[in-house]
Amino acid sequence: MSAAPFRHVAVIGLGLLGGSVLRAVQQFLPGTATTGYDADAGVRARAREIALAGTVAETAADAVAGADLVVLCVPVGAMADAARAMAAGLSPDALVTDVGSSKARVMAQLDQALPGRAVIPSHPVAGTEQSGPDAGFAALFRNRWCIVTPPEDADPARLAALTAFWEALGARVELMDAEHHDRVLAVTSHLPHLIAYTIVGTASDLEEVTQSEVIKFSAGGFRDFTRIAASDPTMWRDVFLSNRDAVLEMLQRFTEDLTELQKAIRKRDGDALFDHFARTRAIRRGIIEMGQDDARPDFGRSDHNGAA
Amino acid sequence: MSAAPFRHVAVIGLGLLGGSVLRAVQQFLPGTATTGYDADAGVRARAREIALAGTVAETAADAVAGADLVVLCVPVGAMADAARAMAAGLSPDALVTDVGSSKARVMAQLDQALPGRAVIPSHPVAGTEQSGPDAGFAALFRNRWCIVTPPEDADPARLAALTAFWEALGARVELMDAEHHDRVLAVTSHLPHLIAYTIVGTASDLEEVTQSEVIKFSAGGFRDFTRIAASDPTMWRDVFLSNRDAVLEMLQRFTEDLTELQKAIRKRDGDALFDHFARTRAIRRGIIEMGQDDARPDFGRSDHNGAA
Repeated sequence: MSAAPFRHVAVIGLGLLGGSVLRAVQQFLPGTATTGYDADAGVRARAREIALAGTVAETAADAVAGADLVVLCVPVGAMADAARAMAAGLSPDALVTDVGSSKARVMAQLDQALPGRAVIPSHPVAGTEQSGPDAGFAALFRNRWCIVTPPEDADPARLAALTAFWEALGARVELMDAEHHDRVLAVTSHLPHLIAYTIVGTASDLEEVTQSEVIKFSAGGFRDFTRIAASDPTMWRDVFLSNRDAVLEMLQRFTEDLTELQKAIRKRDGDALFDHFARTRAIRRGIIEMGQDDARPDFGRSDHNGAA
Repeated sequence: MSAAPFRHVAVIGLGLLGGSVLRAVQQFLPGTATTGYDADAGVRARAREIALAGTVAETAADAVAGADLVVLCVPVGAMADAARAMAAGLSPDALVTDVGSSKARVMAQLDQALPGRAVIPSHPVAGTEQSGPDAGFAALFRNRWCIVTPPEDADPARLAALTAFWEALGARVELMDAEHHDRVLAVTSHLPHLIAYTIVGTASDLEEVTQSEVIKFSAGGFRDFTRIAASDPTMWRDVFLSNRDAVLEMLQRFTEDLTELQKAIRKRDGDALFDHFARTRAIRRGIIEMGQDDARPDFGRSDHNGAA
């Protein structure tokens, strides 16, 4: 579309996601005004130094004043407080969205914190293991999916504008029911993080294998898990508390499957192991064909391509 | 060292590891003769087409004739058969090594298959998710650790030559007891693969979340696991059968830790979750400081650096 979907975008929370939204707006929607706020004064100061937003305000209410789109980029456990803190400054016709990793509970909290306001939650399925105001970059959303979970009574014009906004930032938009989102993400994101945090913890706690050995020989597979397990602990604590039931259900299924493989190893059932291991390649092929991962071996890590 | 550690290197098994050993010898030890063999005639034909070795022989015995180093690069379950198949051609003074991911059982099998011969097992902790004769490349071992597990009566001169060989290929060598190797690798490699194969299987089997959704929204973390779960199924079946006891023990510890986190989620114990998630970042830092992973966010995947 030719016109920018919003005149003025305010971002609350200036970490990896908030910073990336602002960088992407600066790059892909250069005529759009940007303001930002973070509850941490040190983060606000750093955001000013690196010009993360046109203006970094001293209060949330000041940051959202005059904005027609507000993007809440705080951990899901802090959404309600962040919404209440900015409410006094919010324009009556502003649209509020967020980038939280769980949606049903966030939607309920935002509805309660901002009665009568237009709220359409979003979840751009994108990120890295880094955090803080310096972690954001404009290309984060490129070719990634952004799930939007509109309430039943969402205004179609506002929904169209929000969709156009994420598409302008490079994302592909999928509309979904909030409850379904939470079940899909429980398996594609939350369970993988829980498993990665667990195995990295297990390896750290071994008595007979030293931490130095775990680090040295991590290229056998373990190092992949350490990337995810280096993600922001506050964000992930909140995700598991917020999407508790779906995560527990997916975890139950995972544990059943793991028990089955454990039994196959114990019984030396090579055929059962082979059959299981042979059918998981197709999913990887699908992910690469859909442009959702780097097709090069080992993610194209620099130790193989001569860059390091 | 100035002189090449071996005059003639024979490789049995022309997949990712065998191909990489040959490519690395061609690049880093250009005066060394190379011969190769694979039990699969199609692989032998392809290896000839791409000049993977100076000569690709039609039998294992022919391939090792005249070699002073033989590197067995077959799945650990096929080591004993591969050793027996080549035994008739093996020079009396040749050193035999391998690249298998488990060591105690492989060592026992090679000792039995090659009585009285010099055997010093190796395990270069390096690989990608790809397999086959086209998957190998010379830089695979660069900056990776290669664990060598010499038997107590190993000849020091041969051990020194083997060490020099792996170092010439770019690896750093660590000597270790075979049993300790098997426990270290159970946690840094075998358990991560088992977990990744499990979670990818769990996601494929869900009824209420479609395979297409799992693929689309895999950038939330899941896609990382699919890379490892795309590894060669025969190789990994053999690893779990061969290193059964150490894997089962590490799996038991992992399950205990996972149960603890599950309980924290169920009880909504945010402090326990935060404490666990906050202590796993240090391991990632250690891995990056030791040069064992790409320091760029998200492994430097191409979707973030503009390469794709």
